[in-house]
Amino acid sequence: MITGKLFILSAPSGTGKTTLLRKVMADVPGLAFSVSHTTRSPRSGEVDGVDYYFVSRGQFETMREQGAFLEWAEVHGNFYGTSGPAVFAQVSSGIDVVLDIDVQGAAILRASAKIPATISAASIFIAPPSLQELERRLRGRGTDNEETILLRLRNAGREMQEALAYDYLVVNDTLEQAIDTVRAIVIAERSRGHRLPTGEAIKIVSEP
Amino acid sequence: MITGKLFILSAPSGTGKTTLLRKVMADVPGLAFSVSHTTRSPRSGEVDGVDYYFVSRGQFETMREQGAFLEWAEVHGNFYGTSGPAVFAQVSSGIDVVLDIDVQGAAILRASAKIPATISAASIFIAPPSLQELERRLRGRGTDNEETILLRLRNAGREMQEALAYDYLVVNDTLEQAIDTVRAIVIAERSRGHRLPTGEAIKIVSEP
Repeated sequence: MITGKLFILSAPSGTGKTTLLRKVMADVPGLAFSVSHTTRSPRSGEVDGVDYYFVSRGQFETMREQGAFLEWAEVHGNFYGTSGPAVFAQVSSGIDVVLDIDVQGAAILRASAKIPATISAASIFIAPPSLQELERRLRGRGTDNEETILLRLRNAGREMQEALAYDYLVVNDTLEQAIDTVRAIVIAERSRGHRLPTGEAIKIVSEP
Repeated sequence: MITGKLFILSAPSGTGKTTLLRKVMADVPGLAFSVSHTTRSPRSGEVDGVDYYFVSRGQFETMREQGAFLEWAEVHGNFYGTSGPAVFAQVSSGIDVVLDIDVQGAAILRASAKIPATISAASIFIAPPSLQELERRLRGRGTDNEETILLRLRNAGREMQEALAYDYLVVNDTLEQAIDTVRAIVIAERSRGHRLPTGEAIKIVSEP
C-alpha cells in the first residue's frame, strides 16, 4: 500500500482559504481533511472517526497533557483539537490529508519534529496579493468591526513573515488560479519519485 | 526579475514524450524548450538563437573540447548539441526551460554539478506503465524492425532503473493524465517558496 501525503496548509484570516480548499477537495479525489477530536456531542448524521473523534472532556484533557495535540482550542465551551498520532495514522492508511493549521501551529510542528520520518509532508502558505487587498476584502465582507479588522491585519502581517518557511507559497490573487495552483501542488507531490513504495519501484525495474 | 526554472526531462524511447511535451508546452505559457547548437544550415524561417544557435563545425568542435555541451550527437553528418551555459542563460533570463535529455546525459549532469547554484532545477522521468505495454506500443507504431524494437526495450529497461534518481516520476498510462501531471509539476514548482526573489519576499512583509 502507498502511504498518503500530509499537506500542511496555513493562511491568514480573510485570504479565502475555506472557499479555496472546498473547491480543491471537490476536484481532487483521495484528498481529505484531517479528523479532529472534540468534546461536543455528535450532531445528527455525524460519524465518529469520520467527522470528528468524539471524546469526553476527561479524555481530551488527558490527551492534551500527553502533548498529543498539534493544536487545540476552546470554542463555546467545547474543546477541539488536532491529534498528531490520529493525523499520521490517517496518512499512513493511504489517504492524502490536508492539515489546516495556523502559522504558529505549523512552526511548532516543524520545530518539534513531531512528524514521523515515514510521513512525507509538504507545506503550503496561501497569501493575499497584499495587505491592502486583504484589508479591502475584510471590509468588503462587512462581518467584522474596525477593531477586529485591524487585529486581523496585524496578525496577517506577522503571519506573512513566515511564508517563506513553507515549501509552497500560493498568492490568492484570482480564486480560479489559486485553486488550480493548489490542485497542481497536490497532483505534483503525488508524482514525487521517493513517494513510490519499494515494491512499485522493484516492479518497474524487474520486468524483462 | 524572477529567474526561471530548469525542468530536466527524460523518457525511454516510445514512452510518448514528444506528444506529451507538445501538449504541455501549448497549455502552459512561459515554458520553452532549451535552444540547441547545430552545424546544419538554417532552414527557411528559422531564427538564430530561437530555433537553434547556428554555428560552424569549427565553433562546435571548440565548444565540445571546452566541455560546453551537456550532450551532443552527430545526425546525418551534422552536429547537434545542448550547451550548458546557453541553457542556464535562458533560465536566468526568466524563462522556464525544458531540457529534454537522455537518462545518461541527466546522470552526467547531476554528477558533474554543472548546474550553477543560482539555477533551480527539477527533474522529471516519464515512464511507460510497464515494459510489456511499451513493447505493445512500439510494435503498434509499426516503424521499427524486430532488432530495433528489442534494442529499444533493452535500453528502456536499463533507463527505468534510473527513474528514482529523478524528483518526479510520471507514468504515462493515459496520455491525458500524464499531460495533466507534467503540467501540474510545472505549475507547482513555480510556487515553491524559495523561488521568490528576495525583493518579492521583502515586498510582502514590509507592507504596513
